[in-house]
Amino acid sequence: MPKISSKGFAMPDSPIRKLVPYADKAEKKGVEIIRLNIGQPDIETPKIAIDAVKNMDISTVSYSHSAGNLSFREKLSAYYQKKAIAIDSDSILVTTGGSEALIFTINSIADPEDEIIIPEPFYANYYSFSTQSNVNVVPVISKIEDDFSLPKISDFEALITSKTKAILICNPGNPTGYLYSKSEIKQLAQLALKYDLFLISDEVYSDFVYEEEATHYSILQESGLEEHAIVVDSFSKRYSMCGARIGMMISKNKAVIETAMKFAQARLSPPSLAQIACEATLDLPESYFKEQIAKYKARRDTLIEGLRKIPNIRFSVPRGAFYCIVALPVSNSEDFAQWMLEFFSLDNKTLMVAPADGFYSTPNTGKNQIRLAFVLNRNDLKMATIILGAALKAYIAKNKSMPEQLELDF
Amino acid sequence: MPKISSKGFAMPDSPIRKLVPYADKAEKKGVEIIRLNIGQPDIETPKIAIDAVKNMDISTVSYSHSAGNLSFREKLSAYYQKKAIAIDSDSILVTTGGSEALIFTINSIADPEDEIIIPEPFYANYYSFSTQSNVNVVPVISKIEDDFSLPKISDFEALITSKTKAILICNPGNPTGYLYSKSEIKQLAQLALKYDLFLISDEVYSDFVYEEEATHYSILQESGLEEHAIVVDSFSKRYSMCGARIGMMISKNKAVIETAMKFAQARLSPPSLAQIACEATLDLPESYFKEQIAKYKARRDTLIEGLRKIPNIRFSVPRGAFYCIVALPVSNSEDFAQWMLEFFSLDNKTLMVAPADGFYSTPNTGKNQIRLAFVLNRNDLKMATIILGAALKAYIAKNKSMPEQLELDF
Repeated sequence: MPKISSKGFAMPDSPIRKLVPYADKAEKKGVEIIRLNIGQPDIETPKIAIDAVKNMDISTVSYSHSAGNLSFREKLSAYYQKKAIAIDSDSILVTTGGSEALIFTINSIADPEDEIIIPEPFYANYYSFSTQSNVNVVPVISKIEDDFSLPKISDFEALITSKTKAILICNPGNPTGYLYSKSEIKQLAQLALKYDLFLISDEVYSDFVYEEEATHYSILQESGLEEHAIVVDSFSKRYSMCGARIGMMISKNKAVIETAMKFAQARLSPPSLAQIACEATLDLPESYFKEQIAKYKARRDTLIEGLRKIPNIRFSVPRGAFYCIVALPVSNSEDFAQWMLEFFSLDNKTLMVAPADGFYSTPNTGKNQIRLAFVLNRNDLKMATIILGAALKAYIAKNKSMPEQLELDF
Repeated sequence: MPKISSKGFAMPDSPIRKLVPYADKAEKKGVEIIRLNIGQPDIETPKIAIDAVKNMDISTVSYSHSAGNLSFREKLSAYYQKKAIAIDSDSILVTTGGSEALIFTINSIADPEDEIIIPEPFYANYYSFSTQSNVNVVPVISKIEDDFSLPKISDFEALITSKTKAILICNPGNPTGYLYSKSEIKQLAQLALKYDLFLISDEVYSDFVYEEEATHYSILQESGLEEHAIVVDSFSKRYSMCGARIGMMISKNKAVIETAMKFAQARLSPPSLAQIACEATLDLPESYFKEQIAKYKARRDTLIEGLRKIPNIRFSVPRGAFYCIVALPVSNSEDFAQWMLEFFSLDNKTLMVAPADGFYSTPNTGKNQIRLAFVLNRNDLKMATIILGAALKAYIAKNKSMPEQLELDF
């Protein structure tokens, strides 16, 4: 039998995939599952987007331009201008989700065995896409005790080698909820310039900011960084249209965009129907976002209020995005997450969470942490924290009564 | 300034991209261009597909299953059963176009520096996707004199090394229009089994067969080849919905599908809206295809009738797909194609063709050939051949009158 590739073997399983069979079993038993394990918002897609597709006047679903429809890219340019980001339509490639923007970016700047430095915990698929291109992820740890703020610049510098091509950040962060300050972005920009590295910023959550005094500062706003900055963006979360699969790769570096365009031409075009839907969302008034953000802020506050009632856990209050990392008083959060699905329920409800070690590439890190996505309504979120508290109590009691003592992590 | 990757530098430009500015200029001058350079059919997408999207009852465009919606995969399984191909839904991954099916396939079976043997001329993006994964394409030449039939098995064997992972064919062929016989497929299957190689078959044109006596024989129908066969399929051409970006990767080899699934999970999901449209097409009666094929057969016949009137050219009558390679009495078909756009018109119309050397990876091969896609109506196709004949005459006369004698290729 012919063999699969070493690369295919090395590709990580989805961090949540292992738990799916246990969730399926729980549902078969009639247990209701509150799913905070994935970032699929329950918010409706804007009607203007659905209607654009329903009312489209086309008879053939043809290829679009490989970079995306020009009318769409021009509206995107205007959209960024409104956010004080000066980007023309030639600097934007429409991609099949933020995923493809990351794949194009990595392929355009890195060869096999090259290295990309990423603060961890990070979005698990950064590792997948790097593995897909035989590029090595070099993690620099950010700590829950520091609210996952930017690691010291000297920590980055200690990791830079001749193989280092880029530093990749997610701002605001999935899974951390951390929002980098303007000063932190400026430090990263200086570092990129000093070592002539690309600075890649995944800004798909840039609209999801919950602090009055804090605003999102895009690396595209940093003057002097034009040749070094590459931004990954997406419609998935911003307009709750994850299934559209429309993202953007943005850079003022012409060589980067021209190179990415060759990968884009090979795959012919991004999805045409979804481009119609996404272009329509750009006509939404600013009030749309104010409402959404108010909703997510209330959700975050409900989650945090609930978490504060649980003893012996630690978390960083998310300032952006819609995720929260929680450190639990357990040694193996995956075992705990599986146990909740298999053996625990409250009022016939249980909770599905994402074990956080999949967001770390340093071995044996984050094993006591979980990621919660606050993408559901406040009642569910409140119930989720009640279940989490009760489940932890029961799990710890069970383990204490067992011969081997549970090793607490803090 | 930070550098782009060697891989990005090595990625080929689209073979037709260089001609686009000349086409734009011709249009600005008011010249009408008959475009036989790309495989974008003018056929309307089935109404049932467009209506499915227009009438969809969803409020959130969510991620689908990473392998595609289960209902869709089950209908695909039934669709293949009707074509005497026994495939269950677990053996099908829905991908973002045939392009992504190829990318997943290459990544699942080959590592950097591994080799894939491909009869040339071949679809240019086989080379692009291989380059994207640092995999080497090893061409085995098929000749216009032999109608691009299968090269001798000994020609393949001479190229097999320890790095060879697969043989990749396109059946029926883009750009050749050749349809492999059952006996040829059986020879390839024996070869794959003998050397324990994967046999990858791009069957996106399997419904486009124009010979009464010939039928398409899928590698999935070849018993004993279950662990070695991987098929790439797509909705793009079959239902004239290129912009949907829905394809399929199919294999009975569980390790291959499980590995590809890891790449699929990393990119989350194929496009949701397009899946709704594509699923609906599977309800079309068989008469739909009979009509389409009759239309394309008439187009092929018109093209061939026109080409037969042009002296000193050579072509192979396409038995399937919708492309025809034509060898011209010129030394550089790209120069000729550009010259047609820049300087030639008949009744204010000119012709855009794809120079064929982009479909060869052996240097200096196919330089006198062009590829024509018969995707337009018969009047345009007839006019295209008249323009081609007149342009050739004028181009050759012009070159003869120049100091340097034109070197004829045959």
